[in-house]
Amino acid sequence: MKVAGQSMRSIWLEADGVGVGIIDQMRLPFELRTQRLITVEEAAHAIRAMLVRGAPLIGATAAYGMALAVRADPSDAAIAHASELLLATRPTAVNLRWAVEDLRTLLQQTPAERRVEAAYRRAGEIAEADIAMNRAIAGHGLPLISQALARKADKTRVDVLTHCNAGWLATVDWGTALAPIYLAHDEGVPVHVWVDETRPRNQGASLTAWELGQHGVPHTVIADNAGGHLMQRGRVDLCIVGTDRTTVTGDVANKIGTYLKALAAHDNGVPFYVALPSPTVDWSLADGRAIPIEERNADEVSEIAGRLDSGEIARVRVIPDGSAAANYAFDVTPAKYVTALITERGVCAASREGLLSLFPERWARP
Amino acid sequence: MKVAGQSMRSIWLEADGVGVGIIDQMRLPFELRTQRLITVEEAAHAIRAMLVRGAPLIGATAAYGMALAVRADPSDAAIAHASELLLATRPTAVNLRWAVEDLRTLLQQTPAERRVEAAYRRAGEIAEADIAMNRAIAGHGLPLISQALARKADKTRVDVLTHCNAGWLATVDWGTALAPIYLAHDEGVPVHVWVDETRPRNQGASLTAWELGQHGVPHTVIADNAGGHLMQRGRVDLCIVGTDRTTVTGDVANKIGTYLKALAAHDNGVPFYVALPSPTVDWSLADGRAIPIEERNADEVSEIAGRLDSGEIARVRVIPDGSAAANYAFDVTPAKYVTALITERGVCAASREGLLSLFPERWARP
Repeated sequence: MKVAGQSMRSIWLEADGVGVGIIDQMRLPFELRTQRLITVEEAAHAIRAMLVRGAPLIGATAAYGMALAVRADPSDAAIAHASELLLATRPTAVNLRWAVEDLRTLLQQTPAERRVEAAYRRAGEIAEADIAMNRAIAGHGLPLISQALARKADKTRVDVLTHCNAGWLATVDWGTALAPIYLAHDEGVPVHVWVDETRPRNQGASLTAWELGQHGVPHTVIADNAGGHLMQRGRVDLCIVGTDRTTVTGDVANKIGTYLKALAAHDNGVPFYVALPSPTVDWSLADGRAIPIEERNADEVSEIAGRLDSGEIARVRVIPDGSAAANYAFDVTPAKYVTALITERGVCAASREGLLSLFPERWARP
Repeated sequence: MKVAGQSMRSIWLEADGVGVGIIDQMRLPFELRTQRLITVEEAAHAIRAMLVRGAPLIGATAAYGMALAVRADPSDAAIAHASELLLATRPTAVNLRWAVEDLRTLLQQTPAERRVEAAYRRAGEIAEADIAMNRAIAGHGLPLISQALARKADKTRVDVLTHCNAGWLATVDWGTALAPIYLAHDEGVPVHVWVDETRPRNQGASLTAWELGQHGVPHTVIADNAGGHLMQRGRVDLCIVGTDRTTVTGDVANKIGTYLKALAAHDNGVPFYVALPSPTVDWSLADGRAIPIEERNADEVSEIAGRLDSGEIARVRVIPDGSAAANYAFDVTPAKYVTALITERGVCAASREGLLSLFPERWARP
């Protein structure tokens, strides 16, 4: 997507064919700084410290991390060590596990002298596949936006609410939830986005708003508390969110607070869509309540980062000394509150039947 | 309630019998600074700039504001001017209207030479009546907390979730939603409070957490997004919130985001209580959708105030330059999601029948 008029991706192989470029997303929206990764430890750090985040981008970064690992040491032991290191960075992200295991399996089957080339090639394929999947999601999601506009009396604007950041910064390009929005905007649909700020890490306020602004998509940042009221007053035509992990039965793990918006959408008859590339589906899991929910550092609740008038980035404490804080990173939206899933193969019901109608080959892997 | 071991109220008549003391709540939780009001303009400013907030405290401040006005000028014109000035400060607060009209009516019926004394006396009565009502709410709400504890297998802790600040800082003393919690704590019930930070103004993180901490009540601050997840996982035994305005049919206008928590409570079978002194009831309004929702300055969303490491209080910007923000202050929770109302006369259903069973004299004032 566009940044200051130029096309950009969230991860890329550098010109020397060795280093891997990423955007330090912790510095957004106030500074666009790129970083060069050259070791698996740097890749793991980038995931753990959330310089990169978003399930698909974490997967691509982990894949490139495996390539960086075998470049340093192509031994079986090094592959095993790199896999463990990367898998430990973020427990909830199913793409991370998928990418690491894909690379590990490939590399174990490849002679040591060809592992470096094979790993870089596969990491590149994973990145390209992500872009292709997201472009397909954009195509399948676009009619949902167009139809929502067509249903309105006032056809001057269609309002989409999104939570957190499921844009191109969370993937390699296009994004998942934002992909149909970018395509709609590019095709002239008058789309406006309500952007949940998404406390505690404010990925909506900092990343989604930045992405949309750079690409020229009209948007308004709101407190996470506001979406229900907007839906009650008919100001939201549809919701589109991403997911970190979706069960085969359609339960959706996504950024904390997603569930509350799904409840409000259900209560007000607003369609609630989840955009997901199929690697985000956990085909082995039937009950979202079994998804482990990462509990992160309480500092993310008790402190907020932003820009001072001076231009300096600073953290301010927002709770009294002596008060405790707790920080749950995700919640699970039961399938019954999800209107439909938008996948790279089309739109389906949030159910085992729905998903398997689009991915029938998964019948063989219960 | 207690502050550093000493009893304190949120508003008081100073020793000279003229000035009115308040706490500058904008400086909490990092600094306890009191302020002396001596003109109606200062009282109006304190309400408008939210040095005082919370429906009952706004009412008490407005009543003292009328007293300060007639002290400067006891004429009918001055009373009319003061009424208009105070009524314009916060459009949603029904207590404000109630207190101003009560004082205006009283003063119009009082000879000019006795208006100052009458106004101060009535303002004091309003403050005392608020405390008495809140103490009664505490008594009626306490069994709801005790019963929630009694229903648990693990009787070591009962978890109450609250939104925004409906504590003693929002009233004259005790608070509304927090009143039963203080009483439970004082009576030895092992109560723990999940405190929604309550963006955009963070009254939960800054005021509720400070109040509870000063009084010694165990609590944990969470992002507004987290409450649904906690309820799904059985970590919330009941919710108690306050209200700025409740219709005679039990629709509850309260801080933006309340509605989302009510939906989650309903979805998970968690009791959702609203604590309200009866002046908060709008006996003339039958449909919460008719309540005007104040839209406040977008800066409250795009900037967050807190304390830097240096100790200095600062505001940080959290959205990109060029992004718009919108700031809706309240939402309306439909009565069907409210388990019961806790009033000064007892607990009742959130309905016309429920309210009129406790306040039968209101039948005469439809």
